[in-house]
Amino acid sequence: MVYFVELKQLRINSKRLEESIHELAEFGLNENGGMDRTTFTPDELAARDWLKDQLEQLALELRVDQAANIWAKRPGTDNSLPAIAFGSHIDTVPNGGKYDGALGVLIALEVMKLLREHDIVTRHPLALVSFSAEEPNPFGLSTFGSRAVTHKLTKEHIVGVTNHDGYLLTEALRSAGGDPDRFEEAVLKSGDLCAFIEVHIEQGKRLLNQAIPVGVVTAITGIYREEIVVEGEANHAGTTLMEDRNDALTAAAEIVLALEEVCIIHPAKEVVGTVGRMIVSPNAANIIPEKVTFIVEIRGKKREEIREVIEAWEKRIQCTALKRSAQVKRKIVLDQDPAPMDEEVIKVCQEQSRELGYAYDLLGSMAGHDATHMASITRSGMLFVPSIGGKSHCPDEESRMEDIEKVSNVMLHAILELDQRLDR
Amino acid sequence: MVYFVELKQLRINSKRLEESIHELAEFGLNENGGMDRTTFTPDELAARDWLKDQLEQLALELRVDQAANIWAKRPGTDNSLPAIAFGSHIDTVPNGGKYDGALGVLIALEVMKLLREHDIVTRHPLALVSFSAEEPNPFGLSTFGSRAVTHKLTKEHIVGVTNHDGYLLTEALRSAGGDPDRFEEAVLKSGDLCAFIEVHIEQGKRLLNQAIPVGVVTAITGIYREEIVVEGEANHAGTTLMEDRNDALTAAAEIVLALEEVCIIHPAKEVVGTVGRMIVSPNAANIIPEKVTFIVEIRGKKREEIREVIEAWEKRIQCTALKRSAQVKRKIVLDQDPAPMDEEVIKVCQEQSRELGYAYDLLGSMAGHDATHMASITRSGMLFVPSIGGKSHCPDEESRMEDIEKVSNVMLHAILELDQRLDR
Repeated sequence: MVYFVELKQLRINSKRLEESIHELAEFGLNENGGMDRTTFTPDELAARDWLKDQLEQLALELRVDQAANIWAKRPGTDNSLPAIAFGSHIDTVPNGGKYDGALGVLIALEVMKLLREHDIVTRHPLALVSFSAEEPNPFGLSTFGSRAVTHKLTKEHIVGVTNHDGYLLTEALRSAGGDPDRFEEAVLKSGDLCAFIEVHIEQGKRLLNQAIPVGVVTAITGIYREEIVVEGEANHAGTTLMEDRNDALTAAAEIVLALEEVCIIHPAKEVVGTVGRMIVSPNAANIIPEKVTFIVEIRGKKREEIREVIEAWEKRIQCTALKRSAQVKRKIVLDQDPAPMDEEVIKVCQEQSRELGYAYDLLGSMAGHDATHMASITRSGMLFVPSIGGKSHCPDEESRMEDIEKVSNVMLHAILELDQRLDR
Repeated sequence: MVYFVELKQLRINSKRLEESIHELAEFGLNENGGMDRTTFTPDELAARDWLKDQLEQLALELRVDQAANIWAKRPGTDNSLPAIAFGSHIDTVPNGGKYDGALGVLIALEVMKLLREHDIVTRHPLALVSFSAEEPNPFGLSTFGSRAVTHKLTKEHIVGVTNHDGYLLTEALRSAGGDPDRFEEAVLKSGDLCAFIEVHIEQGKRLLNQAIPVGVVTAITGIYREEIVVEGEANHAGTTLMEDRNDALTAAAEIVLALEEVCIIHPAKEVVGTVGRMIVSPNAANIIPEKVTFIVEIRGKKREEIREVIEAWEKRIQCTALKRSAQVKRKIVLDQDPAPMDEEVIKVCQEQSRELGYAYDLLGSMAGHDATHMASITRSGMLFVPSIGGKSHCPDEESRMEDIEKVSNVMLHAILELDQRLDR
């Protein structure tokens, strides 16, 4: 590397990055100012085309893998070395924001532009990645692309899957350039990558509350989900005395409140429990609810913390079921362990923040990310940008450009430092 | 009346009545054994035709009024006297039962058959009535027919009303023989009726639990309904710490449980409170609920009891709202006073039960009925038949023929006695 002195002075072009953010935000923009760029919809496919076009202009080696992940590789001086990858995703939740996912891909794009502009060649090849379908989507498979490349999602998981309109996931995947028939070929081989870094908005208020611009992620939360079905007895809301009722909704209400209480009293601050989805049946004003189906989600930075919450809450469910003669059926629908980030990557990110003179904080990610899965195959790290108001997954989702700029510079220099430090 | 002695011995033909029950149950029978005879659907219109055909065979004066209520009048010896009316409705809830409503009309039909068979002529004219759209229905207007004849429902309430498919209520009404343009002509005039009796299934377990075949209704429950909107703040279910949450669902759960508790501890056994309908928004597993909309229903035999429950519960809502910084918006959507039944009719029903040697119980109706509205214009009474398992509004809804027979005989003799006793 002949540019050693200049390299330290290198800073991303925040104006150009800001323009990219605005440009990509044209795809799927709705009347609320939110983004409707759900995976494999026409707007998301158009955004993919825009990104591919940008990458082609940088003369990168463009490749869409079998899971429709977009890869853009930049050769290094030693192409026998594994690549250093960085990126995120460009799909959004319905009526989502302009930053969740997109920011990580656009910073990666800016890094590629900057390196080309300054004619900087790293030792390792570099790889920008935009993963498919990270968000919850109508096909029911989130972190689709990162699970595919880490062999956590295979052909058998995707064949026959449809959205609400009956549109096959395999067809949708083909429309984005994927190949369901050769799906396993998307899996990364040992030696393909030596590190992965993802920049993302924090989606919380911890950085904001402390006025710290850079978040260095130590671990990504584990996510545990159960589908609970509480069964009571449907009956006339007028003619059934209180003592004769077996009301599924009041039983469910107790279980919801028990989860909240158990999480509040747990000593770990970052343990959270949520019931976000609930369906009441038959759902008529004058019929006592027969069945309530809901999803319980518990997150924590450590597996033991999640287990402690489940155990305490389980006892409360048993009390409710017994007291009310309600049937409570539970089914685990997700049990994803917390993913610690790589110590070397964490250290390099801290060092680069310090060298750049930016305050940083070490924190856990309470949202799942593509980096959760990447951590199972390569040294992985994440950087967080403060979220204004802690908001995400909504039109108000926003981050300040001065914070974005700082985190981008940390990522840039972390990549350059890892390039120097890593051998494989 | 020359048949005095024989009259006392008169009993309804329960085999013929049973056959009618089976015959009418052919209309709208679904694969669950339930009845899909929602108002103004093709199956309900076919059931109306069957009923009109039955009434015509009895040479009654058939009339379909502007609200599509079916009336069949039988002249008396003194047609200057107002009529004694009896009947109920033949529409059902979706996947409802064979008895709710239909039984009251079929017993009325059997009474008309019996009187004709025995050539009995009363002093007062008699009028069988089958009211339109008693049940909650896709047009959102229950007890439609009885409210129309009592002038509680007017043309302005029905113009522009559609079902979910955009089908106009006024069109549906025309298809059943009604006339929306002259809707007010359905209103009964003073002097049209001197009494109304409705037989209905109890839809509860009170008679069954005491093994009593005849229920004499003292009052019909008041029904009070509020639509409640609890507003919190939508947020990421992972990144928002428990202490930073404003969860609309946990707030709603507290309000639901408070209602239950307030009703249980109220001294009046027949006061009940129900949340049967609840919609969570945005209803996603990983988003803290922003808004929960639900319907609260409170019923009681006395207005004061309903008020007491509301007041106690209101205090609990205020606590929840304050503690959780939740916005709670309340809107009264129904406030129907309890309707006491006529003392004379109650007395005659008791006397006839005793004379027939049947055990009876005095009880409140916790369901609303057409008789609620008829009570505002004429002496009204109701008789209840025990419901097997207390079940109603479902395919399992059933009553034993031996109980039906007894209650039919009480109705028959109550009519004959009122015919003797009433002058107007």
